[in-house]
Amino acid sequence: MVGIIMGSTSDMPVMQSAIDVLKQLGIETEVDIVSAHRTPDKLFDYGKNAHERGIQVIIAGAGGAAHLPGMIASLSPLPVIGVPVKSRNSIDGWDSVLSILQMPGGVPVATVALDGAQNAGILAAQILGASDKAVRDRILAFKEGLKEKVIAGAASLKK
Amino acid sequence: MVGIIMGSTSDMPVMQSAIDVLKQLGIETEVDIVSAHRTPDKLFDYGKNAHERGIQVIIAGAGGAAHLPGMIASLSPLPVIGVPVKSRNSIDGWDSVLSILQMPGGVPVATVALDGAQNAGILAAQILGASDKAVRDRILAFKEGLKEKVIAGAASLKK
Amino acid sequence: MVGIIMGSTSDMPVMQSAIDVLKQLGIETEVDIVSAHRTPDKLFDYGKNAHERGIQVIIAGAGGAAHLPGMIASLSPLPVIGVPVKSRNSIDGWDSVLSILQMPGGVPVATVALDGAQNAGILAAQILGASDKAVRDRILAFKEGLKEKVIAGAASLKK
Amino acid sequence: MVGIIMGSTSDMPVMQSAIDVLKQLGIETEVDIVSAHRTPDKLFDYGKNAHERGIQVIIAGAGGAAHLPGMIASLSPLPVIGVPVKSRNSIDGWDSVLSILQMPGGVPVATVALDGAQNAGILAAQILGASDKAVRDRILAFKEGLKEKVIAGAASLKK
Amino acid sequence: MVGIIMGSTSDMPVMQSAIDVLKQLGIETEVDIVSAHRTPDKLFDYGKNAHERGIQVIIAGAGGAAHLPGMIASLSPLPVIGVPVKSRNSIDGWDSVLSILQMPGGVPVATVALDGAQNAGILAAQILGASDKAVRDRILAFKEGLKEKVIAGAASLKK
Amino acid sequence: MVGIIMGSTSDMPVMQSAIDVLKQLGIETEVDIVSAHRTPDKLFDYGKNAHERGIQVIIAGAGGAAHLPGMIASLSPLPVIGVPVKSRNSIDGWDSVLSILQMPGGVPVATVALDGAQNAGILAAQILGASDKAVRDRILAFKEGLKEKVIAGAASLKK
Amino acid sequence: MVGIIMGSTSDMPVMQSAIDVLKQLGIETEVDIVSAHRTPDKLFDYGKNAHERGIQVIIAGAGGAAHLPGMIASLSPLPVIGVPVKSRNSIDGWDSVLSILQMPGGVPVATVALDGAQNAGILAAQILGASDKAVRDRILAFKEGLKEKVIAGAASLKK
Amino acid sequence: MVGIIMGSTSDMPVMQSAIDVLKQLGIETEVDIVSAHRTPDKLFDYGKNAHERGIQVIIAGAGGAAHLPGMIASLSPLPVIGVPVKSRNSIDGWDSVLSILQMPGGVPVATVALDGAQNAGILAAQILGASDKAVRDRILAFKEGLKEKVIAGAASLKK
Repeated sequence: MVGIIMGSTSDMPVMQSAIDVLKQLGIETEVDIVSAHRTPDKLFDYGKNAHERGIQVIIAGAGGAAHLPGMIASLSPLPVIGVPVKSRNSIDGWDSVLSILQMPGGVPVATVALDGAQNAGILAAQILGASDKAVRDRILAFKEGLKEKVIAGAASLKK
Repeated sequence: MVGIIMGSTSDMPVMQSAIDVLKQLGIETEVDIVSAHRTPDKLFDYGKNAHERGIQVIIAGAGGAAHLPGMIASLSPLPVIGVPVKSRNSIDGWDSVLSILQMPGGVPVATVALDGAQNAGILAAQILGASDKAVRDRILAFKEGLKEKVIAGAASLKK
Repeated sequence: MVGIIMGSTSDMPVMQSAIDVLKQLGIETEVDIVSAHRTPDKLFDYGKNAHERGIQVIIAGAGGAAHLPGMIASLSPLPVIGVPVKSRNSIDGWDSVLSILQMPGGVPVATVALDGAQNAGILAAQILGASDKAVRDRILAFKEGLKEKVIAGAASLKK
Repeated sequence: MVGIIMGSTSDMPVMQSAIDVLKQLGIETEVDIVSAHRTPDKLFDYGKNAHERGIQVIIAGAGGAAHLPGMIASLSPLPVIGVPVKSRNSIDGWDSVLSILQMPGGVPVATVALDGAQNAGILAAQILGASDKAVRDRILAFKEGLKEKVIAGAASLKK
Repeated sequence: MVGIIMGSTSDMPVMQSAIDVLKQLGIETEVDIVSAHRTPDKLFDYGKNAHERGIQVIIAGAGGAAHLPGMIASLSPLPVIGVPVKSRNSIDGWDSVLSILQMPGGVPVATVALDGAQNAGILAAQILGASDKAVRDRILAFKEGLKEKVIAGAASLKK
Repeated sequence: MVGIIMGSTSDMPVMQSAIDVLKQLGIETEVDIVSAHRTPDKLFDYGKNAHERGIQVIIAGAGGAAHLPGMIASLSPLPVIGVPVKSRNSIDGWDSVLSILQMPGGVPVATVALDGAQNAGILAAQILGASDKAVRDRILAFKEGLKEKVIAGAASLKK
Repeated sequence: MVGIIMGSTSDMPVMQSAIDVLKQLGIETEVDIVSAHRTPDKLFDYGKNAHERGIQVIIAGAGGAAHLPGMIASLSPLPVIGVPVKSRNSIDGWDSVLSILQMPGGVPVATVALDGAQNAGILAAQILGASDKAVRDRILAFKEGLKEKVIAGAASLKK
Repeated sequence: MVGIIMGSTSDMPVMQSAIDVLKQLGIETEVDIVSAHRTPDKLFDYGKNAHERGIQVIIAGAGGAAHLPGMIASLSPLPVIGVPVKSRNSIDGWDSVLSILQMPGGVPVATVALDGAQNAGILAAQILGASDKAVRDRILAFKEGLKEKVIAGAASLKK
């Protein structure tokens, strides 16, 4: 199971595509709002216990000085995928990108592109697929689908 | 009393000047290493209890994806001063500056310049001086000292 | 009392939230327009005398090459909170952020996020709360309110 | 097994710490030089077949216009961890960071900090640990070791 | 003949002006969609064979972590012109610019301005004109046309 | 006469070349240390009175959050040339460049390149030369000297 | 007389405010379109002869890779004021700012803020005022007007 | 024949590798110093006549506000390759990169990486190879050499 958390309900429009792609890849998700700065107790509880509750990968999205992914990575032994969200008042997204990416030695966050929640979902599936051939085969099929869309686009261009 | 914390002993060469200037201004300090990412329990404990132990202002220095100042601000009702430290592997300091400065609404961090620990110390004294005339007078004297150094520099130039 | 100044009436839409949050926290404010570049005499007068008039903390907002917070900090012994405002013709806000944040040794400005006037107000209250338990308790209550909003958002998500 | 590749032998000083930390965590590695721009055939071969050879996670390090991680992610169903390397002539590392991080929808790369090869190794272990309790326990022990180092640093500071 | 490729049909509004200016300069074009990340086999095929099919110059447009121009340059002996496209979710275009421009030693991409597809077309014509006086003369005439438009603008201003 | 001021004696190694080139162009200079942040009274006095003392152009150099040029421009009717100095702890010079360049409407500063004090001196001479043919002729001769150095370099290359 | 040139009629909406403020300050202007890249002969002619035609200061506005101000400064002994224009396809204005500001030693351009044409006009007047007391007095009056607007804004706020 | 020009003899250490690689590829070069800002007449002469003298491709290297490549492209119908040089006082190379890359519509410069003179040489050969099979074959052989070096590096790693 993949745990998906975000700092605020306002991150939902971006984070929805992580939920959608995981559903498409047949992987169960659990979604919650956890704010590093407004609900630090919930953050601690979530980070310390997620792996005990059967969660295998965590996707955490946040904007601005985005501390949620890194703090969860500090508390949990699970792989944490960080989604930098371009929030209102962000300095062009640089703040969320750098606050999530530039983690110190010892505590990695697997960072994806700005607002790249769909890729976070695919990466979570790939992580499960590292040890589960059935999931990996669904990823191979998903990649085939991407290819077909490009081929179709190229064909429509030629007409 | 001013609490001074930093993410690693390697931040000490930068943070020392906060300690020094507060000593010069006659203000007591308490120094500790608290890592948001390596000692999250200590972080929680420090943030939740500092104001109960008589600390009035917290100075927190950290580099890279610097979450220490913001997480302490999340946990404590005290004013938190953040010092962005230009750590090894930093992207020119932008990562620490933006991870500390760009806090979301509700949870401020009083950010000073990159490696600006001396200014963090002076700001802590000014905060105490907001309600303590004796401290404020020492700040006025400190400012006078700054002026005199410039005047002396100008004079030596003329010779 | 908290003094709130800004370089131009066009900064008012951003700065209003500092006034609002301080009112909510039960702290008196005094608002004025002081332009470092267009009314330098008023700047000098304000900076030199604010602490004599009972002001304990100054919040200064400005955009572009934003010199107001730093010049007030040069003139006053009080803690100065700088709000970088993303003005028209700003280079994505970097100009105001760097002109306020990167003060030289000796003259700190407590910088908050781009357009972060609400946080400037909260920080001003925290500064007063450093020596005033009643104010600090209101901040603890304010933080509780932030937490409840997130909890409510999480609950509505689950439905 | 974790596959570790890099664009050039000159990336080895950075990438060595991924090898070292995986060894410390008891995970087997296979190291190779694969250049997206100089050996595209080897790139294709590696990307298409790695998962058939028993590799479960790929770590790819590269500098400048760093295409190796993204191209491997294009070719392989495995999770790919990208390490931006600050090469000679790099524009402060921004080129490698952005060429690896900003992947289009459908093809994620799990990006770590600039020169963050140690974290890439830990993340690879966490990915294996998502489905392997023995590995996850070693990560919990590793995190305990990080904490102890900080505690020791704090203690030595107090003396 | 000039080959024009792009990563997605969504790049077509930008890339159209390369096609248009080459038509205006009397040079034949062949347009296709080739995605480095979604159709890597087509990428390989295109890059390895373009010069065998009579193509003399390749124009490749892509956005975000833009690997298409560089990978084509890796595979083909032909001059490759890269057009950084400012895609949705781009970090202000910096990602495409740096992923295309900062190629390692040995594998150049002739990079033009962000969204500068018209200039890519003109550059392709100049490359053909390096060995073909008839094309070069058309470029001289094209430049004359640019001049006349400015002269006409200046004249209309004076009225 | 040209007034040359700087925020600190540590700016002297950069600013010296303004003095040197003005001497070479036969223009008198007056040099002083004026710190916007440490000697605000001297700043006010200098800015308000420079034009009364026969100064025709002011060159002001400063680093970090560089307020000296803009504040002098606020106080004086004279043309003010700003030299961004790359000081210690500067964020690669961006802070001084943007704090000097991005002045609000109504109060210009003529900004030159980072550490470009020689150009500030030449510009000051050009400003005097706008109304003084003798000075302008010296500038024409100076430009001739620049040309000759390049010609000599080209000649030595050919050998 | 002040010569005002720009690279394209599309720069006119920005550059108009230079014309307007100079008119307001009673200074004659001559406006023309001169493109460094499309009309290089006109550029050469303009730069070499402007000072012979009675022009005393040149204002040059351009966007993107903005070479007009620097090339005019290369050709003319007059002071040249550069206005970085944020053109379409600009990378947030950084391209025009850096192409104008960062001139090499020997050839200064007096750079103003992004889209800062009004300030270019005021600076041109200040340059003439360096040797002409009547103009300088009009600048002092203009500055008085700026101050009064701020005072009026402050008064309206208090109501 | 390939013309190689640069703004100053101080660019020679960077530009030498363009000369070297072209020699290695059997292509004749002509090297000169042409400064856009110090020898504008030579610039005009060079740009207008290079194609009449048998030059087919021009490589132009310059630093800071680098106008040489763009101005040559304005004057010549030939393809112009621009090499951004990281000069002393450069703002981390951004100034030269953006002044060369961001050319306006109608006047392209084929820009290579910062200090990427070797790639400029290879690109010039590829341009000649677009119409000359013998040159193209030498490029194919050159690419084979790059591959062999990587293969040898990989082999030495395995030992």
